[in-house]
Amino acid sequence: MASFGHGGNIKQISRDNKIEYRKILDFSANINPLGMPSSVKKAIIEGLDEAEKYPDITYFELKCAIAEFENINKDHLILGNGAAEVIFNVVRGINPKNTLILAPTFSEYEEATRAIDGNITYYKLKEENNFYIQDDILDCINSELDLIFICNPNNPTGAITSIELLIKILNKAKKSRAMVLIDESFLDFIEGNLSMISYINEYENLIIVKSLTKFFALPGLRIGYGICSNIQLKEKLEKISPAWNINILAEIATITGLKDKNYIEQSIKYILKEKEYLYKQLKQITGLKVYEPSVNFIMLKTIIKMELKDELLKNNILIRSCSNYEGLDANYYRIAVRNHDENSMLIRKIRDIFEKSKNKE
Amino acid sequence: MASFGHGGNIKQISRDNKIEYRKILDFSANINPLGMPSSVKKAIIEGLDEAEKYPDITYFELKCAIAEFENINKDHLILGNGAAEVIFNVVRGINPKNTLILAPTFSEYEEATRAIDGNITYYKLKEENNFYIQDDILDCINSELDLIFICNPNNPTGAITSIELLIKILNKAKKSRAMVLIDESFLDFIEGNLSMISYINEYENLIIVKSLTKFFALPGLRIGYGICSNIQLKEKLEKISPAWNINILAEIATITGLKDKNYIEQSIKYILKEKEYLYKQLKQITGLKVYEPSVNFIMLKTIIKMELKDELLKNNILIRSCSNYEGLDANYYRIAVRNHDENSMLIRKIRDIFEKSKNKE
Repeated sequence: MASFGHGGNIKQISRDNKIEYRKILDFSANINPLGMPSSVKKAIIEGLDEAEKYPDITYFELKCAIAEFENINKDHLILGNGAAEVIFNVVRGINPKNTLILAPTFSEYEEATRAIDGNITYYKLKEENNFYIQDDILDCINSELDLIFICNPNNPTGAITSIELLIKILNKAKKSRAMVLIDESFLDFIEGNLSMISYINEYENLIIVKSLTKFFALPGLRIGYGICSNIQLKEKLEKISPAWNINILAEIATITGLKDKNYIEQSIKYILKEKEYLYKQLKQITGLKVYEPSVNFIMLKTIIKMELKDELLKNNILIRSCSNYEGLDANYYRIAVRNHDENSMLIRKIRDIFEKSKNKE
Repeated sequence: MASFGHGGNIKQISRDNKIEYRKILDFSANINPLGMPSSVKKAIIEGLDEAEKYPDITYFELKCAIAEFENINKDHLILGNGAAEVIFNVVRGINPKNTLILAPTFSEYEEATRAIDGNITYYKLKEENNFYIQDDILDCINSELDLIFICNPNNPTGAITSIELLIKILNKAKKSRAMVLIDESFLDFIEGNLSMISYINEYENLIIVKSLTKFFALPGLRIGYGICSNIQLKEKLEKISPAWNINILAEIATITGLKDKNYIEQSIKYILKEKEYLYKQLKQITGLKVYEPSVNFIMLKTIIKMELKDELLKNNILIRSCSNYEGLDANYYRIAVRNHDENSMLIRKIRDIFEKSKNKE
């Protein structure tokens, strides 16, 4: 664990930098700024005694709730202790010799592949295309390939891949007998039909992965799932997964959260407004390139020499350095969309840092 | 998951038998009858907002708390989302061709071995020895063997293996280059120095597994750990484990529970008293053989024809049938030690069932 580095590691940052960790304003983890729904908090407190029992080993109610929310067959669900476990288990189940991974992208695909000693080919996203996947990805799909990972929208770039291109990828992969894992963990943050879930029945080589922890602001509780109509893979995954992998409080939180339509609607509206605000304001800062965001995070690039993360940390603000992403370097950063006051403060601080830096020159 | 059957599946039982699940008195799961410590409940409620953050990916505080409790080096800890995940990950890390498993014993060792398509040899525990491991287990250890699982005390029999015999096993295994996993998940329920933890530094082929969920009555929260001084194995396990596998509330619960010396002391005393009471009373029932318990569960055998589980379920009491344990059959059952009133009720109901059965003859 922890070998590749992730956002949200505020306890470690707090220890290393001797900052009281509750004082750190964390823009490094892409979590819904509205916080855990109050309906979910209430349900957890009221249901706390349930933790004295084992979870239902079949997760019947949890599967029904997710299946209803996603409008899918509950037998197509793969539950995980966070999306990270779903990804690791899917990779174990497929046991690919050769995988195709975007660069840059979320590091767990690479970690999961290295865990089973699989080979990785990177599809290098180009800055000149604003890191959007191009049709030339199809040239990377051949009979040697077993598994393709697509994060949509991609983390940390925010670039969305169109359904049209995803279908081309699925078709070519199908011919080459390769599986395609599409990670839609951030897609709930925006409206518009960009999900591939409705193609699950049509493509047996398609696996959708989703994390609920970002949208419902409960990354500490751990819940994620996969959707796949490939019964053979599903059976293999059941064989290789330990019992009771979802804790009961995550189960209660999920069942409650998915029903909280008001929270869901408000979150989408709020994120849209704050994302636009952050994007617009940050774009005006000279020396900073801001990539157009799609969901609840924004990628930045400093185009003048600048230790932006370190400078912000002096103000107890933590952002994600993208230096350890394959295909990026120390000039790239990712920030999460937080609440209005916090976003305003971040803009102010970044502006100050760039002003000071200019004055020094 | 769920292929082998476990205790504690009351939601499924409730659905299948149309009993409101809160009305089921569950003797099938071996959980501390004192319930989750109130200190832990309080800490979870007060710390609920922490779930809006990712867990510390290094689990620094959690590891320090467990290391202090066990008096071990924190670098020897392997954390898991329940002992089940520890067992699965250890088996993946060792990737044994051939394993030795007790029959009967806890089913997760077999499930974890089947998950990686390993071969299993059973060491058949004999009824004539009250299912205690004998010295002849040493004859099963040879150079073909890669991993031996010992559950101590064994589940469901309650039989304890002596430190003396465990050392003989470890020594022979060491010569044969086999690893030995000793599951001490129930050992905290009794006093007396039966743990092999102090041998961790001496034997690099020793892995201890512990579950905290039984003792602290939080199986729904999921927390377990392994202890092992074999750095090579530890590194392998870090590589194959997904990030953030322990949820933050389980972390809070563990840190709090391990400090609650009063709860720990009371639990041990209470279990001892109630175990003796149950054992003494049940032994007096003609037609029932009761195996001497060690920890918080008791194995029974009906020696007259009797559907004990079904009969008790008519009274909304659930016990564990041992029919699906390798080496046992439908005449064996396991019951957990619960609180005094519940234990009294169980004794009464079992007595009634045997009385009625005798009258029918």
